[in-house]
Amino acid sequence: VKIALLGVGLIGGSIGLAARRSAGASVCGYDPDPAVRAAALALGAIDRQASDLPEALDGADVVFVAAPVRAIPELVHSALELLAEDCVLSDVGSTKGAIAQASSDERFVGGHPLAGAETAGVEHARADLFDGARWYLTPTAGTSGVLYERLHRLLVSFGAQPSAIEAQAHDRLMACVSHLPHVLANVLVAQATGLLGAQAPLPATGPSFRDATRVAGANTAIWTDIYLSNRAELAAAVEQTAERLHEVATMLRAADADAVSAWNERARAGREALLDAGAAGGPVRELRVSVPNRPGVIAQLALALAGAGVNILDMALSPSADNRQGTVALWVRGEQPATRTQELIAGLGFPVARA
Amino acid sequence: VKIALLGVGLIGGSIGLAARRSAGASVCGYDPDPAVRAAALALGAIDRQASDLPEALDGADVVFVAAPVRAIPELVHSALELLAEDCVLSDVGSTKGAIAQASSDERFVGGHPLAGAETAGVEHARADLFDGARWYLTPTAGTSGVLYERLHRLLVSFGAQPSAIEAQAHDRLMACVSHLPHVLANVLVAQATGLLGAQAPLPATGPSFRDATRVAGANTAIWTDIYLSNRAELAAAVEQTAERLHEVATMLRAADADAVSAWNERARAGREALLDAGAAGGPVRELRVSVPNRPGVIAQLALALAGAGVNILDMALSPSADNRQGTVALWVRGEQPATRTQELIAGLGFPVARA
Repeated sequence: VKIALLGVGLIGGSIGLAARRSAGASVCGYDPDPAVRAAALALGAIDRQASDLPEALDGADVVFVAAPVRAIPELVHSALELLAEDCVLSDVGSTKGAIAQASSDERFVGGHPLAGAETAGVEHARADLFDGARWYLTPTAGTSGVLYERLHRLLVSFGAQPSAIEAQAHDRLMACVSHLPHVLANVLVAQATGLLGAQAPLPATGPSFRDATRVAGANTAIWTDIYLSNRAELAAAVEQTAERLHEVATMLRAADADAVSAWNERARAGREALLDAGAAGGPVRELRVSVPNRPGVIAQLALALAGAGVNILDMALSPSADNRQGTVALWVRGEQPATRTQELIAGLGFPVARA
Repeated sequence: VKIALLGVGLIGGSIGLAARRSAGASVCGYDPDPAVRAAALALGAIDRQASDLPEALDGADVVFVAAPVRAIPELVHSALELLAEDCVLSDVGSTKGAIAQASSDERFVGGHPLAGAETAGVEHARADLFDGARWYLTPTAGTSGVLYERLHRLLVSFGAQPSAIEAQAHDRLMACVSHLPHVLANVLVAQATGLLGAQAPLPATGPSFRDATRVAGANTAIWTDIYLSNRAELAAAVEQTAERLHEVATMLRAADADAVSAWNERARAGREALLDAGAAGGPVRELRVSVPNRPGVIAQLALALAGAGVNILDMALSPSADNRQGTVALWVRGEQPATRTQELIAGLGFPVARA
């Protein structure tokens, strides 16, 4: 199989590595930046570099547009004009509506692998980036079945889990579970800055503000693209949140303890269902450990747990105001491992409690 | 100095331990639960237990009401009726407005130590719980200067940093930086549940949703009390957030890339100022490391960094969909330590990037 990559950054480069390893594919890569093309070649992400689109697409069976979201629609359009009939074209953009509208061509299938958002650049590309990762595909009624099947099979060979979804449903989902948390983080920072002033440090109040604003001001170039490419669905989600907040304010003013308790319990159950449902090995359990905040403590904890075969799913360390104490929240899967973890930590002499 | 504690859970017990250690105080403790009183005595948090309020308060120089928020106003009222003239009474509730209104007595100073929110119960009490912790005090124009000074000096002997603040300003601050993040977490879960259904697991989309909802459905008994005791300020903060969200929706629909970029950059700068300003040792830097998700990896990383003297301020581990890969976000203080950390991690063979 012959693959063409339009864009060879983290995602494009990882597709190249995966395709060469898993599918024995020959991979031709184009990138507007010659240095990036050369790096991709040197890293083995591609076995041939092209200096323009026609050269890259010549003879390809599968083409991936792996450019920044903003540049994708035009690249898809240009590629379709140059492409042979028996070739499938996909992309890796994080929103799909605009692209789906841009093409009703039977050769085009929009795509979005849920992987690799944390780092950028071909130097971080990995052959196993997509192992076990969901890879959304947005075929339409006009999509060629033969070509869709070819793409699907290729993604499975990467270790990915392709999953078809309607483009608008995809964008609505991403708006809620990925883009909205970023908006809320930005808004929460703006509100605290408005209250405290631009120069005032936050009093140390526990980890909730820190966790809630961790993604505030994420990479502006990338996120401006994402926000704007999904602006219709995101604006709707943001206004739905505003409506929900008005309801919360009304509930608070009514001082109805039963209503507040029930609302909070629904959130607890909802989070557990969203983050744990269908996972093997039981529900995720949380432990809170008080530790002195010095080098070595986290290592000691992690080593002891690893030695006992406990896998830490998630971990959040929050220092105290003076950096001398801290709390480590640990998440482990299953009731028994949680109990064992608690015993192990208590045995090390650290105060530990189930959250 | 003779101290009386009304309530000897985590906070009351820690006050007792700190007072006995640092101030050589004699500490008498009352708790409605006799088993809790006995545990506090056994742990050395108090040196005498009282079976009712009059017995506890007899001869006290300083009294702390360390009960759940909801129970505080009535306890403060009862204590003031029984208390000698030359005695200062304080409390440790997380909201202060209702209590400040409840008492204009010159002997009363509202208080709120920013410590110990993560665990509960006298068995987790520690003499050093307040080391370096901010301890808000809400004196009024009617507060006795002599008694305020006695309380302040005692808190300093615990290692705490007392800081006077007007009660309403305190509650507005807590609403924004502590209570509002919890509300947003609950609302975000409700919105995702509304979209996906109560049973649907979330697709693995990176850590933003997980981080943003970490405190969703926090301890319902405690948080129902907190929400309601601060309902006026919190409702106002919640509605301000709703207003800000309407503005964001309008900005998104206008598709103004410059405005979106500027808004995101303000959030980045704002978060840095809120969380880093005034901190010693330079700005907090973030690194993202890709790691296989198996026992021992976190320990290996933490040990290597600890061995090089790097202190991890904050850490968040996010597993991939299949639990085989993960990303660890690490925060360290200072540009040089961040660079050294990056080199150390790269030397271990893990992909690492500055965020």
